[in-house]
Amino acid sequence: MRKYSKQTRILVAVDCIIFGFDGERLKVLLIKRGFEPEKDKWSVMGGFVQPDESPSEAASRVLKVLTGLENIYMEQTEVFGNIDRDPIERTISIGYYAFIEINKYKTQITDLYHAEWIDIKEIPQLIFDHNHMIDVALKKLRYKAALHPILFELLPEKFTVPQIQALYEQVYGSELDKRNFSRKLFSTGLLVKLQEKDKSSSKKGAFFYKLNQDSYKDNFEKFLNFIPNPQALLS
Amino acid sequence: MRKYSKQTRILVAVDCIIFGFDGERLKVLLIKRGFEPEKDKWSVMGGFVQPDESPSEAASRVLKVLTGLENIYMEQTEVFGNIDRDPIERTISIGYYAFIEINKYKTQITDLYHAEWIDIKEIPQLIFDHNHMIDVALKKLRYKAALHPILFELLPEKFTVPQIQALYEQVYGSELDKRNFSRKLFSTGLLVKLQEKDKSSSKKGAFFYKLNQDSYKDNFEKFLNFIPNPQALLS
Repeated sequence: MRKYSKQTRILVAVDCIIFGFDGERLKVLLIKRGFEPEKDKWSVMGGFVQPDESPSEAASRVLKVLTGLENIYMEQTEVFGNIDRDPIERTISIGYYAFIEINKYKTQITDLYHAEWIDIKEIPQLIFDHNHMIDVALKKLRYKAALHPILFELLPEKFTVPQIQALYEQVYGSELDKRNFSRKLFSTGLLVKLQEKDKSSSKKGAFFYKLNQDSYKDNFEKFLNFIPNPQALLS
Repeated sequence: MRKYSKQTRILVAVDCIIFGFDGERLKVLLIKRGFEPEKDKWSVMGGFVQPDESPSEAASRVLKVLTGLENIYMEQTEVFGNIDRDPIERTISIGYYAFIEINKYKTQITDLYHAEWIDIKEIPQLIFDHNHMIDVALKKLRYKAALHPILFELLPEKFTVPQIQALYEQVYGSELDKRNFSRKLFSTGLLVKLQEKDKSSSKKGAFFYKLNQDSYKDNFEKFLNFIPNPQALLS
């Protein structure tokens, strides 16, 4: 028995925006769409929500089927619901995003799939409102990274300060003062200096660091400064 | 011509969570549901997205029809999409939230409607997952208020420091140190001291303040401390 019989049902899709860092460049994962309309055009990874799955389950399934990626933690960005955003039929899409270390997932994204990492500076024209979806996801990433040290999750196990700075600069799309940045960075207590140096970019070299895992977990909310003890409040 | 003919269409709803402050208490606007199932039970303001409207247009319409409120700026919280969240038929709901000064909207919410402001500490059992929806919206409010001085929008034109503190304490559900709080508060440069005192709560009285509107607009993002010049980045 349907009690809501007078109501209109609508197609619901999910679209996944995956950011990655390869140690040098911030990138986004794109595919060439495999069906009409807009076949062979670049897009983010999308698909329809099925009757037996929640939107987040749909997002995981779509990502796995189209790219091979699995066990990726994705968060919602927002809902894209303009009535004419899909030219074929009205579709409300729920955006999801994640950020990963590219090299860690190299074996999952194989040639079986047609997914490619594209530099954030070189994103082509995408189908529908997908360029806008990436902008919204990037804004979420900026917002979150301003509060939590989440960008460290994009770094390789050992990394240099110039690498972190490059990552922050690409996420925020702006140059950061070197001295100011490293002062703030070290004040977080998140870094452990290693003996080894990276000499690939300069003669003098740059020390490698690793993340202080305990400190990272304990102080996940430490970037916040107005509310005392925000850990308890925002978790 | 339908190209997506194999796909399942789903009911999509919006649910509006409206927080308000009356100068003393943080409250949430609730109604008694007017139709089955769960008729006469408390709920937030919800309704189905129609074919000719975007989800945000649906949210504005639903809020107006059920409470009389209009021209309220609402933001999405998240999508609630568990397949069994509505016992009658699968419905995916998009949450929206807003926060307003209760006294400013007194004339809009009249007896014509069955909407009531309920103290955040005394929220009854609501239908479906609506209690969870309020929790999610409150978390968004906390998150946003930690970054931006948005809670000032909940205060009357002239207000006292104990009033602001009471508001922050209710939003964050925790007591704040008085001295520490006022030190941080004054350091924002957002307050202008008035000559007049509020003597309703103590003999000595508490000075009234008003918001420095210029400073408020210019420094909307000033609570942020890790990223330089965040105004340009988060807008």
